[in-house]
Amino acid sequence: MQEITSVNNSLVKETVKLQQKKYRDKENKFLLEGYKCIFEAFNAGIEIEYAFVSDKKKYDFLVDKAVITTEPVLKKISTTETPPDAVAVAFKKNYSSADLKNAKKVVLLENIKDLGNLGTILRTSTAFGADAVVLYGKECADIYNPKCVRASVGNLWKIPVVYIENFNELLRIFKGFDRVATLPRAKNYLQNFEASEPLLVMFGSEADGLSDELINFSTKEVKIEMASSVESLNLSVSCAVVLYKLFI
Amino acid sequence: MQEITSVNNSLVKETVKLQQKKYRDKENKFLLEGYKCIFEAFNAGIEIEYAFVSDKKKYDFLVDKAVITTEPVLKKISTTETPPDAVAVAFKKNYSSADLKNAKKVVLLENIKDLGNLGTILRTSTAFGADAVVLYGKECADIYNPKCVRASVGNLWKIPVVYIENFNELLRIFKGFDRVATLPRAKNYLQNFEASEPLLVMFGSEADGLSDELINFSTKEVKIEMASSVESLNLSVSCAVVLYKLFI
Repeated sequence: MQEITSVNNSLVKETVKLQQKKYRDKENKFLLEGYKCIFEAFNAGIEIEYAFVSDKKKYDFLVDKAVITTEPVLKKISTTETPPDAVAVAFKKNYSSADLKNAKKVVLLENIKDLGNLGTILRTSTAFGADAVVLYGKECADIYNPKCVRASVGNLWKIPVVYIENFNELLRIFKGFDRVATLPRAKNYLQNFEASEPLLVMFGSEADGLSDELINFSTKEVKIEMASSVESLNLSVSCAVVLYKLFI
Repeated sequence: MQEITSVNNSLVKETVKLQQKKYRDKENKFLLEGYKCIFEAFNAGIEIEYAFVSDKKKYDFLVDKAVITTEPVLKKISTTETPPDAVAVAFKKNYSSADLKNAKKVVLLENIKDLGNLGTILRTSTAFGADAVVLYGKECADIYNPKCVRASVGNLWKIPVVYIENFNELLRIFKGFDRVATLPRAKNYLQNFEASEPLLVMFGSEADGLSDELINFSTKEVKIEMASSVESLNLSVSCAVVLYKLFI
């Protein structure tokens, strides 16, 4: 059982680097902050390399992977204003398009940058029975960013999340799918809208919406009913309402 | 036409104070940050007292209320990491329970503290045709907090938002209403759930859920269908799905 109290310790410095995407990609690791997050990841079979903890007993389940530490160290390695009681380093789960082969209900997000929305949508997609989420485009945020990890509330690793940049790959994978574009200018309202499996439901970013490429790729378009005084909905909210209607 | 370039100017100092609830309450004013937010508030008839702007032409509609300023001033008075191109000071719209008298579709949030969720729920409630939102309990966040103003994306002033702390007042106002509690332990699923107007739909905070007091006050209970692997949904997401089903 180790104890680390210096913020200048080399393991502390290595851990801090994982706040940056560059290092998360290089090391294939990411940060888990706080008891709930660490416990859920552990239970879901995420491999934890080590964890800085303030209270050893609470983290008995980590056995010899827990390193006792102090609040200044936790403050340094965590990304929240109030430091959590523990920060763990875990190995990423990496998916490829091969993981989509049996998927019948898939959510696609194009160039999504907002980390809170991304995490929330992963949580909602899992809750409403999606088999996978595809992140399409070069500007998609990193799901292993600590803010997204937090917003997903333990739902980052329950279904495959696959990054795809190549349109031809989308074409190949989703050829036989009902491909639904959610668009404010669509003619069909969600209330009486029907779509059948295998089903791909596509959302653009809040700022830019869906690209023409994906609108052309769609086989159906749908919009959500709403008051004319409101211009648009939050992306997490749109996703939730559409997925509830089409997946449940 | 005024110009203010010093961060030590007294009007700059007065404006910064409005980042705090204490001063917003005292002065009955709040901050609007960025073009879209200011423009929408202006169009909705929100009274703007003055605005610090970097580009006068863009803010022609404010006439003599625009004060030309510099980036350091905007950085000081704004609450976002990247300062917006303008910050305006506007007068709050104050509602009381009298504003609920003709409401037939009302959303109630109990002790909601998350500012992002609060703003998003105001946006969703307006979009899905709620007549009013009630914030119940002593721990509800301030809708005029800059983070909530941002998350509402121009939907802070379109329907009455009424703070109520007294349970007897709730009883009096919503006596004849169908009062729906959204609860994870409810027996009825949302899919085939029906409720009729006048209708009050109640949500607890993400951390604590609805209090026993409000559960006892309810006439119906409902829960959202979801995968057993997911513990709960984000509060904005739950609200959106339930309100879409019951209000649209």
